[in-house]
Amino acid sequence: MPHKSTGEVSFANPSSIHREGKAAREALEEARERCAKVLGVAAKTLFFTSGGTESNAIVLFSMLLRPGGGGICYSAVEHPAVRENCLVLERMGKQVWSIPADKDGRIGGESLEKAIEKHGSPRMAAIMAVNNETGAIMDLKSLGEILRKSGGPRVHFHADLVQAAGKIPLNLEGWDLDSAAFSAHKLGGPRGIGLLYLKKPLSVLVLGGGQEGGIRPGTENTAGALEFAAVLEAHAEAQAQKAAAAAAEKRFMKLISALGSIERCTLIPEDRLPLDSRFSPWILQTAFRDIPGEVMARALDDLGFAVSTGSACSAASPERPVLAAMGIDPRLRLEGIRISQGWSTTDEEIEALIAAIHEVLEYL
Amino acid sequence: MPHKSTGEVSFANPSSIHREGKAAREALEEARERCAKVLGVAAKTLFFTSGGTESNAIVLFSMLLRPGGGGICYSAVEHPAVRENCLVLERMGKQVWSIPADKDGRIGGESLEKAIEKHGSPRMAAIMAVNNETGAIMDLKSLGEILRKSGGPRVHFHADLVQAAGKIPLNLEGWDLDSAAFSAHKLGGPRGIGLLYLKKPLSVLVLGGGQEGGIRPGTENTAGALEFAAVLEAHAEAQAQKAAAAAAEKRFMKLISALGSIERCTLIPEDRLPLDSRFSPWILQTAFRDIPGEVMARALDDLGFAVSTGSACSAASPERPVLAAMGIDPRLRLEGIRISQGWSTTDEEIEALIAAIHEVLEYL
Repeated sequence: MPHKSTGEVSFANPSSIHREGKAAREALEEARERCAKVLGVAAKTLFFTSGGTESNAIVLFSMLLRPGGGGICYSAVEHPAVRENCLVLERMGKQVWSIPADKDGRIGGESLEKAIEKHGSPRMAAIMAVNNETGAIMDLKSLGEILRKSGGPRVHFHADLVQAAGKIPLNLEGWDLDSAAFSAHKLGGPRGIGLLYLKKPLSVLVLGGGQEGGIRPGTENTAGALEFAAVLEAHAEAQAQKAAAAAAEKRFMKLISALGSIERCTLIPEDRLPLDSRFSPWILQTAFRDIPGEVMARALDDLGFAVSTGSACSAASPERPVLAAMGIDPRLRLEGIRISQGWSTTDEEIEALIAAIHEVLEYL
Repeated sequence: MPHKSTGEVSFANPSSIHREGKAAREALEEARERCAKVLGVAAKTLFFTSGGTESNAIVLFSMLLRPGGGGICYSAVEHPAVRENCLVLERMGKQVWSIPADKDGRIGGESLEKAIEKHGSPRMAAIMAVNNETGAIMDLKSLGEILRKSGGPRVHFHADLVQAAGKIPLNLEGWDLDSAAFSAHKLGGPRGIGLLYLKKPLSVLVLGGGQEGGIRPGTENTAGALEFAAVLEAHAEAQAQKAAAAAAEKRFMKLISALGSIERCTLIPEDRLPLDSRFSPWILQTAFRDIPGEVMARALDDLGFAVSTGSACSAASPERPVLAAMGIDPRLRLEGIRISQGWSTTDEEIEALIAAIHEVLEYL
């Protein structure tokens, strides 16, 4: 009961009326303001959640409460946090369809137009900004325009920005998004804290104590919110330093060029260029002939490099639905590995990785 | 990509196949084993979530996927995390009914039997072990027996144990629970980490990357899980030290006796005794004549004590549904405040609180 020191303020309950509660509320709102400033939106449009998955789920499951008809569409390369829940909604009787991906893993405007022609204007569309397995960047602005042309403001346009935040420039209002999902840990922040952008309030399925404007129930994670604001600011600053971003781009150019000269290596998609505006210079999908992705990942792991096959979020499933959506043949899908870099990656590490790949290829 | 130092191991992705991923997976499983040991259940029955609200919601919303009929019942004194979601399920077409509380805020066996007679055997029953506003302890063992008599294993018996963990002895298997919800921050742990006990796996509504056995999607919060295990162990140890528990009981005896001798004070319920096995010796609800609860809370706040009106989770709603369910009259409901103590509360703090209450009463 007695007041704690102000150092512990973020552990009080922001919804309590006592002094520590008020201080925690202020800290939470400060975190929200700071995130809003980085994202260029109003603070009242941001809601703290437990992570990207929950942020996506809040939006998708709101469809169960939405009066009137209309289907839900999602891009064929969505993260399981979106795709799997769209399939749940389909099992619950909603009209659900996917937007086919182009060969490069992006959602083309024509593909979206054709899908709308076939299925009708959707009530909700979920399209990610950057694919987590290939780095493919979607042109959300032009896709949003096609969606609006089909159904105007009746279409809810949602974007999973988990892989995009801190990596490519975001423009939530310019892309005309109705909602977007973010995760702190993908920015180097802690687990268990996410962010949901909602242009307008939404009727949500899961209720509770009314926290976060009724959008996300559960005692507010003030400490996590402050850490989220800090990593978001740090990434915005790193992005603003064009030199750091250019260095990252240069590192990937070196890596992709080196891989291109390895006969057994196939980039996914094959026509990815060392410098390619279609892809995020932070994520790369590639395959090595006759080496299953899991074997390659383990071999590189033994040499000190952490790479993965597909998304860790679908580690249990060997199907690689994102690569399948790109029309990649089953053998190549099995051989695919995902290489990613971060702000702290160095030129030397990229060179060492290239050497490690050559070493593995000598033995496998 | 390069391996991080082992000190950062808990920040790797436990679902990744590389080395840090495997180490993080081991740390996560260690946390689960430790929680399981304290709770006396198998590790495979425990799933980490983002908190008590989500743990409750996972169980409640699984009803949307459950084939066959049968209603959902909840005790009239449930926390909003349960009550509000039961009302959502009702709006979605499920048969939902509440079990009336007795005057002391507990759910009596007779009350449950009568309600079953009226509404039929439920498919799911949600009854909390300790009420968060009054400290009322429910006899889950005998209530569970009544539920089983009505529908056998077809009834899913769920308990919100958020206020009970670390405060009263738990017996998940002895109470014949099918599921239970826990929150770390109520034990002094961090926000954003909860636990869900599931005797048997469940079909859940929200999917994603398949983490936590498919029960709770989202990258695993390994650091939070380890902190949860640590606070759960610390509380179990404190509980095992009977002297500490007895001291807490003695502190509340002193407080309740002192309040009993204040003419303007009414305990809620009125017949609560200084030592009363019906109530948790950690939570107390009381009212002061002609002083709205919010005014009393602010006055005590000014004197250095953090007390609250109702649950912080329903701070926005002045209705006090828990007190209403006890038949408390509207005036007294408005005057109710909740006083709670923790393991670190001292005799001197209780004495200071009693003095502060007397001081406030002189002026208000």
